[in-house]
Amino acid sequence: MSVLTDRYTAEREAIDAGLRAAASRLPAPAARITAYHFGWTDEAGEPARASSGKALRPLLTLLAAKTVSGDWRAAVPAAVAVELVHNFSLIHDDIIDRDSLRRHRPTAWTVYGVNDAILVGDALHALAFEVIAEAGGDRAPAATGLLAQTVRALIEGQLADTRFEDRDQVPLDECVAMSEAKTASLMGCATALGALFGGGTPQQVEALRDFGCRLGLAFQHVDDLLGIWGDPAVTGKAVYSDLRNRKKSLPVTAALGSGRREAAELARLYGAERLSDAELHRAAELVEVCGGREASQSAAASLTEAAAGVLVAQHLQDTAVEELTSLAASTVGRVW
Amino acid sequence: MSVLTDRYTAEREAIDAGLRAAASRLPAPAARITAYHFGWTDEAGEPARASSGKALRPLLTLLAAKTVSGDWRAAVPAAVAVELVHNFSLIHDDIIDRDSLRRHRPTAWTVYGVNDAILVGDALHALAFEVIAEAGGDRAPAATGLLAQTVRALIEGQLADTRFEDRDQVPLDECVAMSEAKTASLMGCATALGALFGGGTPQQVEALRDFGCRLGLAFQHVDDLLGIWGDPAVTGKAVYSDLRNRKKSLPVTAALGSGRREAAELARLYGAERLSDAELHRAAELVEVCGGREASQSAAASLTEAAAGVLVAQHLQDTAVEELTSLAASTVGRVW
Repeated sequence: MSVLTDRYTAEREAIDAGLRAAASRLPAPAARITAYHFGWTDEAGEPARASSGKALRPLLTLLAAKTVSGDWRAAVPAAVAVELVHNFSLIHDDIIDRDSLRRHRPTAWTVYGVNDAILVGDALHALAFEVIAEAGGDRAPAATGLLAQTVRALIEGQLADTRFEDRDQVPLDECVAMSEAKTASLMGCATALGALFGGGTPQQVEALRDFGCRLGLAFQHVDDLLGIWGDPAVTGKAVYSDLRNRKKSLPVTAALGSGRREAAELARLYGAERLSDAELHRAAELVEVCGGREASQSAAASLTEAAAGVLVAQHLQDTAVEELTSLAASTVGRVW
Repeated sequence: MSVLTDRYTAEREAIDAGLRAAASRLPAPAARITAYHFGWTDEAGEPARASSGKALRPLLTLLAAKTVSGDWRAAVPAAVAVELVHNFSLIHDDIIDRDSLRRHRPTAWTVYGVNDAILVGDALHALAFEVIAEAGGDRAPAATGLLAQTVRALIEGQLADTRFEDRDQVPLDECVAMSEAKTASLMGCATALGALFGGGTPQQVEALRDFGCRLGLAFQHVDDLLGIWGDPAVTGKAVYSDLRNRKKSLPVTAALGSGRREAAELARLYGAERLSDAELHRAAELVEVCGGREASQSAAASLTEAAAGVLVAQHLQDTAVEELTSLAASTVGRVW
């Protein structure tokens, strides 16, 4: 991930400053929990330098703005709004999934309780719209509409995801649709808002939305691979975490639907009450044998290529397009 | 409450139609839960005619629009947005307060689980901004900002409210500030958005916001009186429900801070683990003896009068102002 952190210091500082300014408007208890969640403070409220996450989505917003106007500064409020929506949904999803770790630290609800975490998520959600409304000028209605539709998609994806757990079989196309709603929609919103705040034409905004959606789906394939084979020291999650939770992720769904003899063994393991370490190891092996690993690796690669393709002939600034596509490539090229 | 339901049939139908149209955009599981919450369907998803609530806030929006333009139709999207925000916060608050009844029926989280109820609340929250953005035209940024600030206030109020439970004493001014944030802010937003969508001047919008805020605080005083002395058949809550939950409501806070000898007995009862029926009855008596009932009754009356006062000399339409102020009076004149 070095390309993200090394190259875009000014952009990341602007995002961080924008987030801190927005959070400072919150009522004190909500501001405290937000500061903890973003890694600005520790559990006791003392300044900390924990990770605020990759800031991938707001960086995509700023680089998308640069592809249309050469300048990213006008899009900082849009980037901040996107990151606020992302983090509101993380805080609520952590409650829903009962996840206890996020960015190597205890999740907000485990530290401050479910009730406060619900309210802080709500506060960040509203704050995103406030930031957009204040800075958007005549683009504010379009930006607000896009952001609200994206939240609707996020919720659709999360509702589908929680229902997958209760089903023995999920068709791969339903799993792809869920990932598009849950992940790709917000990445598409991030790049579209960047183009919009950068002053792009409707065609440019749409092309950048398309770029972000394809990249987002590629990203989900990679994230799902990391959920099985990722290094816990890097991902901040337990080893085999998605298998442990019997998550019907993209590679698992592809494997289960592969029609291979070994898929039946994987389905049996997924139906068990608990999996031992040996069984988790075997489940990972079965996903690979049934072609799930390879399917997600090649989907991620071809989606990233297709994403770059939609930016051609959009009269965008070449250097900025290169920056954006190499950020994309570095994101889906993560360690697997 | 007959004045509300009898007089404004067309307005209520427009609000209902707008809410149903907005809800139809939600992903199927969220639409189903929303339909149950609004009383359009029963738990099995069959059509029902349960209560959708008083629709007080959206009616205030429409009548406020009428005071500036004589016509309420342009403000229907604003009314719908206000009602969506109100209901998002009800759904989340019911989870937080572990309330099992709302409008005489099981709350959404008790029927569909906490996880889905969190997500449906989030969906209604986003939908409110979507409705405003689409219909607001050049007023959309101001309306979005106002709505977002209001959600921030709602959350501030809810955070304060939950913290009051852990404190022995709460100064009355803190309790008033909490009620302003939790209740008055959304009523003020309702009337301000009505004036804004009705094409009002900034002065008129501000006067109507002020009107709504004062009315909202009066309303909270009344609601708190009903939380002690309300008829369960009317309120849909258990008898003495606020006392049972040791809620530091406005009349209770006034009583506890009255300095009277009986206030110490009330404080002791509020410190107990559980209250028997006899103790609940005694606690209600003590609130009255310590002047809490009278304080909230007279605050409600004077706030309602002051609210009407701020509309004078704003060049508003007389008949519509009369309608608005009598709606206000009927609201705070509820059964006590």
